Amino acid sequence: MAQALLTSPANPRLKAIAALRRRRVRDQQGVTMVDGIDELELALAAGVRPKTLVLCPDLIQDADRERALVERAPEATVLRTSRSAFEKVAYREGPDGVLAVVPAIARTLQDLILPVDPLLLVAEGIEKPGNLGAMLRTADAAGVDAVVAADPVTDWGNPNVVRSSKGTVFSVPVATDTTEATLQWLQEGGVRLLAATPDSDLSHTEIDLTGPVAIAVGTEKEGLTDRLMDAAEHRVRIPMHGQVNSLNVATSAAILLYEAERQRNSA
Amino acid sequence: MAQALLTSPANPRLKAIAALRRRRVRDQQGVTMVDGIDELELALAAGVRPKTLVLCPDLIQDADRERALVERAPEATVLRTSRSAFEKVAYREGPDGVLAVVPAIARTLQDLILPVDPLLLVAEGIEKPGNLGAMLRTADAAGVDAVVAADPVTDWGNPNVVRSSKGTVFSVPVATDTTEATLQWLQEGGVRLLAATPDSDLSHTEIDLTGPVAIAVGTEKEGLTDRLMDAAEHRVRIPMHGQVNSLNVATSAAILLYEAERQRNSA
Repeated sequence: MAQALLTSPANPRLKAIAALRRRRVRDQQGVTMVDGIDELELALAAGVRPKTLVLCPDLIQDADRERALVERAPEATVLRTSRSAFEKVAYREGPDGVLAVVPAIARTLQDLILPVDPLLLVAEGIEKPGNLGAMLRTADAAGVDAVVAADPVTDWGNPNVVRSSKGTVFSVPVATDTTEATLQWLQEGGVRLLAATPDSDLSHTEIDLTGPVAIAVGTEKEGLTDRLMDAAEHRVRIPMHGQVNSLNVATSAAILLYEAERQRNSA
Repeated sequence: MAQALLTSPANPRLKAIAALRRRRVRDQQGVTMVDGIDELELALAAGVRPKTLVLCPDLIQDADRERALVERAPEATVLRTSRSAFEKVAYREGPDGVLAVVPAIARTLQDLILPVDPLLLVAEGIEKPGNLGAMLRTADAAGVDAVVAADPVTDWGNPNVVRSSKGTVFSVPVATDTTEATLQWLQEGGVRLLAATPDSDLSHTEIDLTGPVAIAVGTEKEGLTDRLMDAAEHRVRIPMHGQVNSLNVATSAAILLYEAERQRNSA
């Protein structure tokens, strides 16, 4: 605890951490970055064991909270830095003085343990980390049992996914695989697949969303692939009444998941 | 049409446009910026009459679309710029070569013309332009009749609101006023007010959302003010089943508005 404050961003240990902004480096080292005290607390609560903690005493508002963090990460190397050095390694704008390097989030479909009658979200081809994170946050609230990224462009370990998910990437079971493998896995598990698309006459509220169900959403530009659409039991649309008639993909997922929540939990 | 290409960001006309990034300058001049061809087409379709068009031939992919834009804005001064000059005045990252200065979006509650049994969204105290824009986009799709920003921190004319709304800020009726004036206006119009809050035992699906209804959402940090909560006929919560249990405010609005849509349009 009595180590010196690191003040130079050129310090080799800080440089190594700054390098983790790049996906390739994270993948090589099998790690993910958690940027923010709220996010780290949630990761710790989900059983994540940090390898390194970077703390900036100048930025941390609450010394008790900092002490508790360090106690909950007994295996972590703790580095304390000056404010300017911290701002160089932190990923977010306006960092709060807490950054951690944790083991990568890399679950496969086979690692997922599902309850009876699972509710799943399949997000195909998603590019924007913010959308993937927002979907996780909603999935957490809606009681989704797992979120599968099929053929994703971004990865679960992207610091912007971690941040925009408010740390739920550590608490909601997630997996990544190809669309093909995901479809096979759903079929083997006896999970019905519903594809969200504007090109359907069937409203999402007209479909039974109880029992084992996976709801699939695609990118805003391209939508779902033909392969996934063909494999779906139903194609459903969210009714739209406006002039623009395009919903953000994370918003669409929220509307669909909460219709499922309504059907599954009402009387 | 045969005017010279402006290549210097120091050009006084371009400098004057770049200055419109600041709210104070927009307010003084009574204008709003529209950044992007999709957004501008939607504004034109909603009857907006641009004062100035800034076009970058190098960035515009579709010459026919550009020509159509210019024809639909006969009163506008048209400036054509080089790519580097355009990138200096554009608000967004990766601009598409079309920027317009249009009259400010500044409607008051009294300007709103409501149908029988309106569905309204009241967003109180919202700070982030992206959230306000996302709510408008969803409101457009859900068939909301008007969106009222009560005591807002951000303004409808913020270029990030325009952009994240995908231009729906021009097609969905919007107004701004104090919470107090909004409550009085709702009461005079005989519109029932529902307040969304985690502190309620009543689920949003257990409430009648047909007839004249306003749904109010507050900021993620603070929620709705006591004043608004006290004035609401019901306080409703979105059921949450997760570990984090906080939804983004725009996501909450989407879930609530689409429950209203379901109730109002089914059978």
